[in-house]
Amino acid sequence: MIGRDVIEAAAARIAGHVRVTPVIRPGVWADLTPADVTLKLEQLQHTGSFKARGAFNRILGADAVAAGVIAASGGNHGLAVAYAARVLGHRAEIFVPEISNPVKIEALKAQGATVNVVGRDYGEAYEASEARRAETGALRVHAYDQPEVVAGQGTTGREFDAQAPDLDTVLVAVGGGGLIGGVAAWFDGRVKVVGVEPTTSRALHAALEAGNPVDVPVSGVAADSLGARRIGSIAFKIARTQVERVVLVDDADIIAARRLLWRDLRVVAEPGGAAATAALLSGRYVAAPGERVGVIVCGANCHPGDAV
Amino acid sequence: MIGRDVIEAAAARIAGHVRVTPVIRPGVWADLTPADVTLKLEQLQHTGSFKARGAFNRILGADAVAAGVIAASGGNHGLAVAYAARVLGHRAEIFVPEISNPVKIEALKAQGATVNVVGRDYGEAYEASEARRAETGALRVHAYDQPEVVAGQGTTGREFDAQAPDLDTVLVAVGGGGLIGGVAAWFDGRVKVVGVEPTTSRALHAALEAGNPVDVPVSGVAADSLGARRIGSIAFKIARTQVERVVLVDDADIIAARRLLWRDLRVVAEPGGAAATAALLSGRYVAAPGERVGVIVCGANCHPGDAV
Repeated sequence: MIGRDVIEAAAARIAGHVRVTPVIRPGVWADLTPADVTLKLEQLQHTGSFKARGAFNRILGADAVAAGVIAASGGNHGLAVAYAARVLGHRAEIFVPEISNPVKIEALKAQGATVNVVGRDYGEAYEASEARRAETGALRVHAYDQPEVVAGQGTTGREFDAQAPDLDTVLVAVGGGGLIGGVAAWFDGRVKVVGVEPTTSRALHAALEAGNPVDVPVSGVAADSLGARRIGSIAFKIARTQVERVVLVDDADIIAARRLLWRDLRVVAEPGGAAATAALLSGRYVAAPGERVGVIVCGANCHPGDAV
Repeated sequence: MIGRDVIEAAAARIAGHVRVTPVIRPGVWADLTPADVTLKLEQLQHTGSFKARGAFNRILGADAVAAGVIAASGGNHGLAVAYAARVLGHRAEIFVPEISNPVKIEALKAQGATVNVVGRDYGEAYEASEARRAETGALRVHAYDQPEVVAGQGTTGREFDAQAPDLDTVLVAVGGGGLIGGVAAWFDGRVKVVGVEPTTSRALHAALEAGNPVDVPVSGVAADSLGARRIGSIAFKIARTQVERVVLVDDADIIAARRLLWRDLRVVAEPGGAAATAALLSGRYVAAPGERVGVIVCGANCHPGDAV
């Protein structure tokens, strides 16, 4: 299990390489929720998502990175690994599935990464990256199911806790579970941690129902960042005891939340980055009057014009 | 003159009505500037600019607002006054020139304000608002040249000072001077305050050269927020002794800074809101190695897609 000590060590390791992302109290949504809301603007992190935390923690914590680093991801994780590798002076090889957005592929190349477009989906790209890793001996940086990665993402929770020490509840979007695993491990029951998934990619929700990780179909507006077919094993173990429950949001909830974040705060979030906000503002998460709810806005890798 | 005590009083008066806007250290622009940069994200303020601070301070500090409030502005100030009036339960009448953006007029109406479209420019709209005020007895909220407004904007400086207590320099965009007047009054020479104006709307630069406020021509991408024809008399008096100098940026500098704010931070700023950042990243403001430079990102009333 990931303990608070491991997350403390991760925070010390990555300090200076990641941004302390700010929090803000919107103060304008009384007609939408009775909660006392604090947002953590983690979409302002390097490369536009929390993924930089896990990437730096994994790479900085490794014994030998002489053969470079390797990862599979057509999205936020790949960008974070490519960035961290460049900053730390390592080669990076990123495997992306054929469906990936060409804009994201260009962004990966702009970070100096070698990009291999292989496979129809993340699973196939991942298999190709593992085969390649067997040849090169590069350091694998998993998108979510690796202790160092989960501990790195957990520093988001540690930082939020320090910035807003009186929270009752934290809402966290869930894809493969790296972020919620780390955040729930940090809060360790002291603060209620609630997961948020799209109805169309409910890997954690389904796993908690089934009693173990199971495959789910994946679609919807947030699929490019939250669309994991199966929850990570580390996140699942943590979530079973440390996540209060999982709330489901639909695409309309997410689109509405993105618009409210822009209209009322001038914050741009990608669909997955707005999912936790969507749970609160749609009422899918029912807050008590005055409940101090922290919401992590976790990504903004999108065209900013899509926020309206 | 506006003293620190007046700004302290303003901060106490408007607390709870305005957001504490966050700061962030970008940590990625070493190839563009040798400065140690901290951004204050004041574009996340209510109504998307610092103007809410002055509007609340003016209205909350007034003896009688029974006849409502009145202001002239087709832009950020009008929106802030309309918002503050609505929150505080007062009627608002806003005079906007015929050139105003229809989107901004709709936003004013959405705040419940009565909107009067009068005159070819701000000056004519202002004259019409003054004539109307003589009839109604409404409370005037000036866009920049009123002590309560300047003191309210000065709370931006006070807040930044508390959040980043070791700054050497603060860069502030200048339109009519409400923001820089308040910020320079707060820092009172302890921190170097540098104004930033577009070459195409250099009201403060021209006034400091001439020794008194003079009219300047106004154009360029930031004219809708920074395009004051003449610097405010309050700001001019403060600037003469408390502003180190004024740096000029051109439209290309501003456009480049907006793109960098989005690309490297996922921050959207309108042209005027990005002007201070532009001064630093273009090298028009020459920072010393390690100089701790604070930059106020002061507005984001634009289409977010325009940031790229």
